[in-house]
Amino acid sequence: MLLKRILFLLTFSVFILGSTGSSMAATGTITLKDVGSFHVGGEVVTLSDLPVKEVQAIPGGPVRKSDPNGDYQAGQMYVQYMIQANPVSEYPLLMWHGGGLTGVTWETKPDGNPGWHSYFLRAGFSTYVSDAVERGRASWARYPEIVKSEPEHRTQNSGWGMFRIGPSDGYATDPTKRVAFPEQQFPSESFDQFWKQAVARWTTSNSEAIKAYGQLMDKVGPSILVAHSQGGSYGLTVCQNAPDKFKALVLLEPAGAPDPAKVDASKVKDVKYLVIWGDFFDKSKLWTTYRANVEKYLDAVKKAGGTVDIIDLPAMGIKGNTHMFMMDRNSDQIAAMAVDWLKKQNLAK
Amino acid sequence: MLLKRILFLLTFSVFILGSTGSSMAATGTITLKDVGSFHVGGEVVTLSDLPVKEVQAIPGGPVRKSDPNGDYQAGQMYVQYMIQANPVSEYPLLMWHGGGLTGVTWETKPDGNPGWHSYFLRAGFSTYVSDAVERGRASWARYPEIVKSEPEHRTQNSGWGMFRIGPSDGYATDPTKRVAFPEQQFPSESFDQFWKQAVARWTTSNSEAIKAYGQLMDKVGPSILVAHSQGGSYGLTVCQNAPDKFKALVLLEPAGAPDPAKVDASKVKDVKYLVIWGDFFDKSKLWTTYRANVEKYLDAVKKAGGTVDIIDLPAMGIKGNTHMFMMDRNSDQIAAMAVDWLKKQNLAK
Repeated sequence: MLLKRILFLLTFSVFILGSTGSSMAATGTITLKDVGSFHVGGEVVTLSDLPVKEVQAIPGGPVRKSDPNGDYQAGQMYVQYMIQANPVSEYPLLMWHGGGLTGVTWETKPDGNPGWHSYFLRAGFSTYVSDAVERGRASWARYPEIVKSEPEHRTQNSGWGMFRIGPSDGYATDPTKRVAFPEQQFPSESFDQFWKQAVARWTTSNSEAIKAYGQLMDKVGPSILVAHSQGGSYGLTVCQNAPDKFKALVLLEPAGAPDPAKVDASKVKDVKYLVIWGDFFDKSKLWTTYRANVEKYLDAVKKAGGTVDIIDLPAMGIKGNTHMFMMDRNSDQIAAMAVDWLKKQNLAK
Repeated sequence: MLLKRILFLLTFSVFILGSTGSSMAATGTITLKDVGSFHVGGEVVTLSDLPVKEVQAIPGGPVRKSDPNGDYQAGQMYVQYMIQANPVSEYPLLMWHGGGLTGVTWETKPDGNPGWHSYFLRAGFSTYVSDAVERGRASWARYPEIVKSEPEHRTQNSGWGMFRIGPSDGYATDPTKRVAFPEQQFPSESFDQFWKQAVARWTTSNSEAIKAYGQLMDKVGPSILVAHSQGGSYGLTVCQNAPDKFKALVLLEPAGAPDPAKVDASKVKDVKYLVIWGDFFDKSKLWTTYRANVEKYLDAVKKAGGTVDIIDLPAMGIKGNTHMFMMDRNSDQIAAMAVDWLKKQNLAK
């Protein structure tokens, strides 16, 4: 295993050193032929026999009745697209966020610096950035009448450890008293700003999310997926369901994967996989477990003849990356590796 | 009053006929020097003494504890910006949506055609499209612990009448059985698709929304505001609070306004106002009341020396526009009028 890792690193280092310097993509203009959005998936759900309320929506305006009985949309997701006038790839780049977050994940870093979305746009990719079912602009349906369970709102306290900024008990309300991992790369002084992006999530809606993502793939067609955490987990599953819709998956710390005993891994052998892992796994039992599940699946894909490349950042000497490495100080450096890899797969000019 | 209206229409018709044809803006590429987003406003709220739960976020993954005690962000709003390489105006264009909706209002029409956002981008404006506090990507905080009241999820049934697609009792679950106003311009066959954009809203959070919008203005500086419905109501109030931050307000059926008896209307006399009204007001008591409140305020602004132009679409012979006229079939025609008006105010090249 160690030998395999060293051999991989040697090969990969040569590839990185030989790259054409995509980090240049951080500057330059973006010329689009189309900007817009759509919702995909979802269905009408009808409620009845609920009590009617009275509300005053505009201060000073009239009181009006609010009758909750009637038709709602539930289960749809939101997708914003930016189509390049001259794309570097014939395939669009889809960006799927992680749990408790939205597509904003890609748009900005909490220190105000540009995120991966801007990076990939400047690199010439057409993008589709989405909000998963029930999050952000996807909208969420009434509970408990439509969605049967309660949402989870994550605290900043839990996010600090969950996203491996620092130890689980390292968070304090007072920013000056927080304990981060030594030499970690997250702009931790902007952690409160980051948390403004956090949204409620339902832990019971995976099947609805997977269904809507499948409908997105039917609509958009063969694509390159860049997915983070829970989004990576969804990506691996949706790709198993419709491998012809994916050219490549660039997975940033996917949080889960199909059970290889329950799926046919050879179905996805023509899809190219790049998986990127950050630092501090030895500090998190939860992430060690998640990673092991993912590696088990990817090993099965490899054995079935698939292409799976892995970037283990700390093993390459790139230290201190958190679970949110698309927001870390060196996020451009990692984005450049992903772009170079896509070029190597002949998926970008 | 009738004479005044005829005189206005004559003047306005000449202006429209003499326009340079901004509807051409519907085609052509968009060259941006920057794309990104941020959250503005909000604060940390700490909860304690709540029971701890157990959740399984990833199917097959481990069960984890979910402790709701700790720090949350509440009261922030979301803003996505697209900055032109060569803007037609030295001022950015802010787009504020209406109640129960998000910035998606501007991005797309439910029939899939491009919306006002794309129109104004193609016309060369830099844009800031936002989601108001608690809606869409702004995120919403726990209730009843942080937000004290329950949200309202609007039914499709109520939206049909509220947005003046048809009479209040004209909605049916079966699309073929819906009754729309004759010759109305909304793509009503896509009404279900439109409703996928609808989000929960709190009717009690106006002061939080107004506060965050004020913080947005502090951050962005003097701007042109395009605002719809409740967003227009917020715009009129935020402009009263900080008139130096607004060059012009283009208001699409604002749903409310400050009470002129309680504010000094002369404070905003240097801001240019354009208000656009659609059709079917005689079919809606609620909208007749809202409109009367707005007109009372705008009359006070005019009397204080302000510039208030009004486009009453049906009075100009443009019939059938609903409350959602930025999504109506003739939305480009109305956007072109707004762009022409901005040019007339020397706010665009």
